[in-house]
Amino acid sequence: MSISSVPMQKKLISTESGAPAIAGSTGVPVNEKVRRSRMTVLAATAELLFERGFAGASVDEISRRSGVAKTTIYRHWPTRVDLLRDACSTIGTPQKVPDTGSFQTDMTALMTDLAQLLRTARWTSVLPSIIDAAERDPDIADMYSKLQHGYSAPFETVILRAITRGELPDDTDVAMLIAALTGPLFYRRWFSRDPLTDAFAKQIVQRVIR
Amino acid sequence: MSISSVPMQKKLISTESGAPAIAGSTGVPVNEKVRRSRMTVLAATAELLFERGFAGASVDEISRRSGVAKTTIYRHWPTRVDLLRDACSTIGTPQKVPDTGSFQTDMTALMTDLAQLLRTARWTSVLPSIIDAAERDPDIADMYSKLQHGYSAPFETVILRAITRGELPDDTDVAMLIAALTGPLFYRRWFSRDPLTDAFAKQIVQRVIR
Repeated sequence: MSISSVPMQKKLISTESGAPAIAGSTGVPVNEKVRRSRMTVLAATAELLFERGFAGASVDEISRRSGVAKTTIYRHWPTRVDLLRDACSTIGTPQKVPDTGSFQTDMTALMTDLAQLLRTARWTSVLPSIIDAAERDPDIADMYSKLQHGYSAPFETVILRAITRGELPDDTDVAMLIAALTGPLFYRRWFSRDPLTDAFAKQIVQRVIR
Repeated sequence: MSISSVPMQKKLISTESGAPAIAGSTGVPVNEKVRRSRMTVLAATAELLFERGFAGASVDEISRRSGVAKTTIYRHWPTRVDLLRDACSTIGTPQKVPDTGSFQTDMTALMTDLAQLLRTARWTSVLPSIIDAAERDPDIADMYSKLQHGYSAPFETVILRAITRGELPDDTDVAMLIAALTGPLFYRRWFSRDPLTDAFAKQIVQRVIR
């Protein structure tokens, strides 16, 4: 579909504030200003998350760092948790969904990819501070469990396709299977701190889905 | 073995400071005073861990809370990490090691017991703050991974007994099997936050050791 064929309605919805694009006093369209200010705030929030963890990313500090007024920040995000959810979404690393037609091949690819992310991605250092904040604040706990379900979506897709192909039984407990596969990797990354190798990820696949 | 048959050497070693028990100026034996002051400090540290998490348990605050001078605290524990390691050991809940003669029965008992602990034990709320501190401090990371290996000792015992009985192959990768079994429970407790039921723990046992 070319740009010109996008229906007008869709164009309006796709602007981030939902408001029509009218040029402001500086000549920059209002929506473009809104978009830029949101991006500046999200970038400052991500920086603070990396530097100081979840507790260090206060709205005061985010306002100071981004140069965007607190009133403006609260216009974009009603609560700190809303802002932090969006910022967390930007720092995660979405996994590609393999689709070779074989469950074992696809799952092995996803698992070795996840092992590599857990060994190297910068967000893995921020995550325990979010989990810690979630222990004390039910809104953060709820926000984080939704993010986690988003992160595990590629695993769900691969499992559902295997069920459709008949490689897995119809009554497969998808959430249990995701926990059985990814849980051991999380355990090594943050709890036992034993080496999190590709070989380990493959051993888990073999043990869980043989 | 009765108390009177304990060799003298052992009696001396068993005193916590290692020093001989000589009565101090108050008439209380020195070792008893040392033991009491250590216990007071450990209790204050555990209290602070529960209230404020790992970052909130500073030696300053522990000294204030316990009424024990910082110089005394540092005489017992050379570093804050040494003190926190001992305090963490006291707040954990050691699991009993079942020994029914059947690997499946023993492991199911351990796993449902762990699921119950993860649902109810107070230390589970403190743990993410330790994991978070470990991300920034290699000494804490090292301390915590040793504690974690201690917590998983009952699982190791049950697996090693099953190898001895011939229920598991001689070349069983014990650390991998512990990760495969306990990882999914940790994942549900702190990451996905899906219900951590006994039924889930049993499903994991069946899937991993069938």
